[in-house]
Amino acid sequence: MVVVNKGLDNIYVKESKICFIDGENSKLYYRGFSIEELAEKSNFEEVAYLLIHGQLPTREQLSSFNSFLAENRGIEEIMNLMRLIPKTSHPVDMLRTAVSALGMHDSEASDNSRDATVRKALRVLAKAPTIVAAFDRLRKGKEPVKPDARLSHAANFLYMLSGKKPTEREAKILDIMLILHAEHEMNASSFSCSVTVSTLSDMYSAITSGIGTLKGPLHGGANEAALKMFMRVGDPSKAEEFVDEALRRKEKIMGFGHRIYKSLDPRYRVTKPIAAELAKQRGKMSLYETAVRVEDAAIKALAASKLFPNVDYYSGIVFSNLSIDPDLFTNIFTIARISGWAAHTLEYLEDNRLIRPKAYYTGTLDLKYVPIERRS
Amino acid sequence: MVVVNKGLDNIYVKESKICFIDGENSKLYYRGFSIEELAEKSNFEEVAYLLIHGQLPTREQLSSFNSFLAENRGIEEIMNLMRLIPKTSHPVDMLRTAVSALGMHDSEASDNSRDATVRKALRVLAKAPTIVAAFDRLRKGKEPVKPDARLSHAANFLYMLSGKKPTEREAKILDIMLILHAEHEMNASSFSCSVTVSTLSDMYSAITSGIGTLKGPLHGGANEAALKMFMRVGDPSKAEEFVDEALRRKEKIMGFGHRIYKSLDPRYRVTKPIAAELAKQRGKMSLYETAVRVEDAAIKALAASKLFPNVDYYSGIVFSNLSIDPDLFTNIFTIARISGWAAHTLEYLEDNRLIRPKAYYTGTLDLKYVPIERRS
Repeated sequence: MVVVNKGLDNIYVKESKICFIDGENSKLYYRGFSIEELAEKSNFEEVAYLLIHGQLPTREQLSSFNSFLAENRGIEEIMNLMRLIPKTSHPVDMLRTAVSALGMHDSEASDNSRDATVRKALRVLAKAPTIVAAFDRLRKGKEPVKPDARLSHAANFLYMLSGKKPTEREAKILDIMLILHAEHEMNASSFSCSVTVSTLSDMYSAITSGIGTLKGPLHGGANEAALKMFMRVGDPSKAEEFVDEALRRKEKIMGFGHRIYKSLDPRYRVTKPIAAELAKQRGKMSLYETAVRVEDAAIKALAASKLFPNVDYYSGIVFSNLSIDPDLFTNIFTIARISGWAAHTLEYLEDNRLIRPKAYYTGTLDLKYVPIERRS
Repeated sequence: MVVVNKGLDNIYVKESKICFIDGENSKLYYRGFSIEELAEKSNFEEVAYLLIHGQLPTREQLSSFNSFLAENRGIEEIMNLMRLIPKTSHPVDMLRTAVSALGMHDSEASDNSRDATVRKALRVLAKAPTIVAAFDRLRKGKEPVKPDARLSHAANFLYMLSGKKPTEREAKILDIMLILHAEHEMNASSFSCSVTVSTLSDMYSAITSGIGTLKGPLHGGANEAALKMFMRVGDPSKAEEFVDEALRRKEKIMGFGHRIYKSLDPRYRVTKPIAAELAKQRGKMSLYETAVRVEDAAIKALAASKLFPNVDYYSGIVFSNLSIDPDLFTNIFTIARISGWAAHTLEYLEDNRLIRPKAYYTGTLDLKYVPIERRS
């Protein structure tokens, strides 16, 4: 009997040692370490190393990893191209194009050895924040800010975006958010990278596919949609009415539900107190309180359907209070997720097999070609 | 029991009315029409219409389809970007970047209605040959040739490449080759487009993923590799020795074998006489005869393993005798396959489901975070 599985639900496409999601028990592990412990004790660069290389780095390993990233932050090779990009472009389309362009400038582009593939992934990891920040400044009529090699990945990004050094706490908050978004098992974008590289294509092609796949509102766009939903609600007092009305119309509550989690998303638990902290500090409690009351009402209404808030529910509020424009949120996700994409791509290539499923044909056969003058 | 299926072999990811490959009986159908009949009686534009819209067009439908394509061939919007592309770039990296850039310039980029999605696909279909030809001229220090709206898709491409109008027969041969390459069920690149669009991302992202996926030597690069193999053999008299030696070393014979075909690829049968015709006309019989003798020896040696020549075996000789550089072959494949990618993407979206498989976790859990100074 032919079984058609459109979403590939519950199909295992590889064995993996990168990530485990325990959807029943609200747990997420990177390389065996719980996300809560990494968010509390580690930092993004160390987590990227862990994902890509399989274990926590020694001091020397981390130091040379950090130096490689810091030295590769510059994007001079595509700066002329960046200046040609229409200011009205969607930032995801921009990033997809710019990363694809990096592949034309890398002298190791056609070296498919593992070492070169790792270096190419790290170059994209290093350059992506610079690209995102440069475009945001260019579209606002400002000159890009050159990266500062003395700053961490997170701090340098905020610096390149605003031109001002962030506070230690702001940088730490973005660092935690990058850790939370770095990896999430065989999601659509990581799978997309794997499909691309399974033909023995290269890392730039893989990451370009990942960015285009993450763009879709069913994947990367949910935090922006959640933030806009809170804005539409407008005031905490309108939350309950909004949820009733939305569910009556069978509309989705953005930032709720996940194919794997059947209870709370552990990343949500880390994000919520950070969203509260920043909202308070920025004097923007009304939006946060709106989110909390929408959440409370939606949890009550949706618990029976096993729909719970996920990481996207509060992350938009956090990014927004770090002065990041909503249409950049998906790119922030990408900046972090490149590390997971790289890890999955490298792991897939260790024992590669071309990914080539089938379509089940339900059409007719042996039609006779009719000359155009006899068609109607 | 957990089954891990790395290549997704024999997994059906959707029902489809686009393409049927009868691998046992050497048959290939587009929308129910056999590839032999389409190659003989139809033309590429009509086949693209058939694939995308599901039936052969009436005269009016074809006329308006052709006009839309001809009117959209220009690439003025990315011409400055094209001039920035390093002349040494791999043409596939170039095309991936240029198509991604088109998405930043399309005013319908964020309109995900079916009609707008079709129009976006047709714009890429119309512009891709112009991009490929323009880059080939720019890298050779020549000015790009503007498209000629009076020429067919195939004839116009050859014209933009060389600056000279092709003969009717040359244009027809490329037209046939485009028909043969237009579609091939749920191959890795069509699947890659489907994964990307399943997040509700857009057509430009999907086709960009397809190009990056087609780049790999396990997918789009085989005809170039086959041509280079014939060149390495050097002379028809060395064919048998070459095959013996290659098989002894367990090396692949390029252009042989296919996951679906367990007998001859029907596209191979159409291509071989065309390769002979062009080789004779160009006075390049030695390379063609080398290919024939390698083929004969390899068929004898490999028939027991059910490995037969596929479309890639002779298509490189055809393209080469149409004065197309070998590193452009994958882009010719893309120019044709955009029609199949568009058809699959549109069909997938009719009843979309996010493609999100799983990875089977075989790593450890609950590792304790060790501070960096205590790691070794």
